[in-house]
Amino acid sequence: MHISEDTRGVYVIAATPFAEDGALDLASTDSLVDFYLGCGVHGMTILGIMGEAPKLTAEESVTFLTRVLARVDGRAGVIVGVSNPGLDNLASLAKTAMDKGAAGVMVAPFPGLNTEAKLINYYAQVCAALGPDIPLVYQDYPQTTSAPVSVETLNILIDRHPQLVMLKHEDSPGLAKITGLRKTAEQDGRRRISILVGNGGIHYPQELARGVDGAMTGFAYPEMLVQVYDLFAAGKAEAAEDLFDAYLPLVRHELQPGLGLAIRKEVLRRRGAIASAKLRAPGPKLSPEDQAELTHLVERMESRLSTLGLAA
Amino acid sequence: MHISEDTRGVYVIAATPFAEDGALDLASTDSLVDFYLGCGVHGMTILGIMGEAPKLTAEESVTFLTRVLARVDGRAGVIVGVSNPGLDNLASLAKTAMDKGAAGVMVAPFPGLNTEAKLINYYAQVCAALGPDIPLVYQDYPQTTSAPVSVETLNILIDRHPQLVMLKHEDSPGLAKITGLRKTAEQDGRRRISILVGNGGIHYPQELARGVDGAMTGFAYPEMLVQVYDLFAAGKAEAAEDLFDAYLPLVRHELQPGLGLAIRKEVLRRRGAIASAKLRAPGPKLSPEDQAELTHLVERMESRLSTLGLAA
Amino acid sequence: MHISEDTRGVYVIAATPFAEDGALDLASTDSLVDFYLGCGVHGMTILGIMGEAPKLTAEESVTFLTRVLARVDGRAGVIVGVSNPGLDNLASLAKTAMDKGAAGVMVAPFPGLNTEAKLINYYAQVCAALGPDIPLVYQDYPQTTSAPVSVETLNILIDRHPQLVMLKHEDSPGLAKITGLRKTAEQDGRRRISILVGNGGIHYPQELARGVDGAMTGFAYPEMLVQVYDLFAAGKAEAAEDLFDAYLPLVRHELQPGLGLAIRKEVLRRRGAIASAKLRAPGPKLSPEDQAELTHLVERMESRLSTLGLAA
Amino acid sequence: MHISEDTRGVYVIAATPFAEDGALDLASTDSLVDFYLGCGVHGMTILGIMGEAPKLTAEESVTFLTRVLARVDGRAGVIVGVSNPGLDNLASLAKTAMDKGAAGVMVAPFPGLNTEAKLINYYAQVCAALGPDIPLVYQDYPQTTSAPVSVETLNILIDRHPQLVMLKHEDSPGLAKITGLRKTAEQDGRRRISILVGNGGIHYPQELARGVDGAMTGFAYPEMLVQVYDLFAAGKAEAAEDLFDAYLPLVRHELQPGLGLAIRKEVLRRRGAIASAKLRAPGPKLSPEDQAELTHLVERMESRLSTLGLAA
Repeated sequence: MHISEDTRGVYVIAATPFAEDGALDLASTDSLVDFYLGCGVHGMTILGIMGEAPKLTAEESVTFLTRVLARVDGRAGVIVGVSNPGLDNLASLAKTAMDKGAAGVMVAPFPGLNTEAKLINYYAQVCAALGPDIPLVYQDYPQTTSAPVSVETLNILIDRHPQLVMLKHEDSPGLAKITGLRKTAEQDGRRRISILVGNGGIHYPQELARGVDGAMTGFAYPEMLVQVYDLFAAGKAEAAEDLFDAYLPLVRHELQPGLGLAIRKEVLRRRGAIASAKLRAPGPKLSPEDQAELTHLVERMESRLSTLGLAA
Repeated sequence: MHISEDTRGVYVIAATPFAEDGALDLASTDSLVDFYLGCGVHGMTILGIMGEAPKLTAEESVTFLTRVLARVDGRAGVIVGVSNPGLDNLASLAKTAMDKGAAGVMVAPFPGLNTEAKLINYYAQVCAALGPDIPLVYQDYPQTTSAPVSVETLNILIDRHPQLVMLKHEDSPGLAKITGLRKTAEQDGRRRISILVGNGGIHYPQELARGVDGAMTGFAYPEMLVQVYDLFAAGKAEAAEDLFDAYLPLVRHELQPGLGLAIRKEVLRRRGAIASAKLRAPGPKLSPEDQAELTHLVERMESRLSTLGLAA
Repeated sequence: MHISEDTRGVYVIAATPFAEDGALDLASTDSLVDFYLGCGVHGMTILGIMGEAPKLTAEESVTFLTRVLARVDGRAGVIVGVSNPGLDNLASLAKTAMDKGAAGVMVAPFPGLNTEAKLINYYAQVCAALGPDIPLVYQDYPQTTSAPVSVETLNILIDRHPQLVMLKHEDSPGLAKITGLRKTAEQDGRRRISILVGNGGIHYPQELARGVDGAMTGFAYPEMLVQVYDLFAAGKAEAAEDLFDAYLPLVRHELQPGLGLAIRKEVLRRRGAIASAKLRAPGPKLSPEDQAELTHLVERMESRLSTLGLAA
Repeated sequence: MHISEDTRGVYVIAATPFAEDGALDLASTDSLVDFYLGCGVHGMTILGIMGEAPKLTAEESVTFLTRVLARVDGRAGVIVGVSNPGLDNLASLAKTAMDKGAAGVMVAPFPGLNTEAKLINYYAQVCAALGPDIPLVYQDYPQTTSAPVSVETLNILIDRHPQLVMLKHEDSPGLAKITGLRKTAEQDGRRRISILVGNGGIHYPQELARGVDGAMTGFAYPEMLVQVYDLFAAGKAEAAEDLFDAYLPLVRHELQPGLGLAIRKEVLRRRGAIASAKLRAPGPKLSPEDQAELTHLVERMESRLSTLGLAA
């Protein structure tokens, strides 16, 4: 099962579980996969830019993706982040991933790609290195990559590379870009690719209204992302946004740069999805104040959901 | 009336109103001041880093601050942003502002100050140029200034410069920094300065719980900032957060970098506070999609407030 | 006398002289103009991005440019840097400058222009605000502006805006960009604009060989820039480079970010061009070690020139 | 043989040789080591930040360092760059390197370390992870790491961590920092650590005069770095600088960001040190214009050396 232009829904960005001593926790990898599937996600993305992929060795990356793919066992699509300073490493990891059953790979640009001519050239090299059969996701996250891209340049890439089937959109501000992509595709008769949104989903209802196809982000209550998607798809936009707003205080709280991942892992731990909230060093750790604050926010969210007649 | 360590409450960041042709709109300056005071703010901050101050000439800056101070007429404190690449210009604008009745001045660091030794040296120069009688606000906004500062260095500045009475806190993530400043002040018997928070107030309830004294931000419904402050001060933290959460979708929407100011000015225009939502060129303008989206978000917020038994 | 596509030679970036107390030094402004003209420069550029223009008030900028233009009195072209966060301020300073006899204006992009679509849109706004009769220089200095531009985008701007007659080239690495601009102009029958190089002239001989038309930089021995240009134009490329290399240790020394301007002003002071090497605060000041080091480098350079049979 | 505070001389930054197809070229690794030793270097640094280390797999890194250490066979010190987003990976590579005979390891900070409190905390973690017996080099290269450090903070690290025995200095401007480090060490009776300079050696004579102990950079004529060091150590500072200046046009040419490594590898290829100038993709490749320009610069340098009575 490969991703395509028609891919829709929620691809949760998966955390990488570690034991307290920092070792890869494969039992928690299984339970995390089960947890995500239990939330109803349509797929998951592993080894992503915001995760701890750079802290894994190449061997660990392969071990982890093998374990995830085995556990998923075809029940959902798995996209693998393969961004790497070296094109050979990138292509090699991509091929390994596809061989083991991945649905596609995701590549972000890097800081040196500071003109759009360079971006166009780089993605041509990436596509050539991957070969035409590996579906590609462009991760547009300029806050981290320092490599912004315009609608015009994305359209050039879409026209040139049929294997570019999805955009992970996390530019900010980015609402106008979504509208620009959808309008120019329609006007020009261009291939309409799948757009899934990141940035914790902070503008998810607005983005759905502007024509995106779902979310690809790591919010620790992925069932919300799924339910909002389903309600929206069923034409119940207001109900979708009501539900989203109940979770918004936590979405916002998780969006704190750097700290957010520690919060997410702690929520996943509390929910029983992983055994430890450990981040690999160097990485932040929640203080007692952070823990109490999180507890309070979760309680408020549960109370709000119960007012809406929904259980968390 | 000068600001001091004991200053509390809401200092709204004031927009600068322009006519459709880009000229300074002094009639709207008056109506905007009236609007802010009607919202119950404790003060306002003009010519701030996120405003359009860099698009004013020096003459226009003085015209605008004179008009604001005359209209306020002692009913609230007015802080004036005086950051400038040249120390002489900075000191000159500060003295003009204080002569006309300002309550204090705000200075942000700039990108060249890339070590804390340089920050310490720069603020020593700033304090010397201002003289000891002008109260100073340190604007800590590293996302824009590229000049981050640690708790340790802020404490050095607090110890050395009695005129440094307030921190405008908008580091991100920044919750631990607030706790760090409050704890080290208590442990070391250090002077406790006023901390008002920026970043659109996106973490306002959490920040109040961690010991800040209020907000200094430009959210276009400043009455929310005031009511949350009052409720919190009255010990009603949950009610404060309920109210905040009703506005959160709009707080989040206004926080979009660059676009946020256009949204804020449009809300102020719709609320009758200013005649035009014009931003000086080059600056963004809301599209029809943006306008409809904003209308929808405001309607949802009003409906939520009415559910809570509160009128917008 | 306006600049055009055919402008050739050396436009020295002029320092702004201050008295020891930081005031604008108009007598030194006259002597500095005389000094530059005595060095044989073809023109000069004032109020540039690397100068202290941001530390001048708007009034001082006009006073300074008026003084320079009066002193030059038509003997050389004067380009005025008019970059400004506000388009109205930019256009207003440009018109004042042209009214007083400037040869053209220079505009750099700014950090927000982070895609080439935005750059194209911004320069369209700039040209509209200037009107078609003011010759425009594009300052391409991404190390400072954080707004890189590709050959492709520069060509679009050249095609759309006949008033864009000159590129101040200081991208780094930038040699391939020069070749790219010259080759695409030839291949496409595109208008060939003037290219003058900055970055202290550190790659000047290589840049001349690749087709640039001269230099626009602030090296404190502008006669070298002129002599190298003349030798090169006379077909004596090796002699040009021999001369350049004799000055290269000082060119390199002046290129230190931030500190370079203090070194340049000190050289200008020693050479009698200005009364004080003062930089406006906050700005660096040479230490005794810096002074001795500079003296040593100048002595070595003079000795080398004398070995080559040339007096400094 | 471990590095220590007393280490002096030239530690050349070694290129990583690849075959035309991108594979690690181990035969060229041997010939490159022989070439460097033939140039008289005191040591070499491999897997550095400016090299292609991020394009190697973890396995290749170990293969390469093993080969280099075997070939060097104790004839020179080998420092290994071990910077890594994960502390476990960092420590693991460091231990492997030391086990195989490395003289020490080098660690650069990373962008997230944006206050000096964070830098101090990070290097404490690094030292704990390494254990006290591995000599550490701090790579101070803020242009790339976005993590500047002051003299004050470096002194704190020197005081706290006896294993921090060397600074690779490549801040810019950086001359005052060298003087600051040497003066504060003397005044405070602080341990004087070794300082080797990077940045291509562009300010090498000035840096030696201010008290550094040698160079750690990848200039493709390492014999110059050695000869200048020797002349300077012998009290012949002028002769040292004469020699340096003869190479300066090429030093400057190699310092072009990004392109510099392609130039260096081409020079190494022409000199017979490696079989191919290949950089791993994505990476720049010299154009015919670049090749001719390089040839010209090398010829001029050889001619200059011959004038000085020295053969290249």
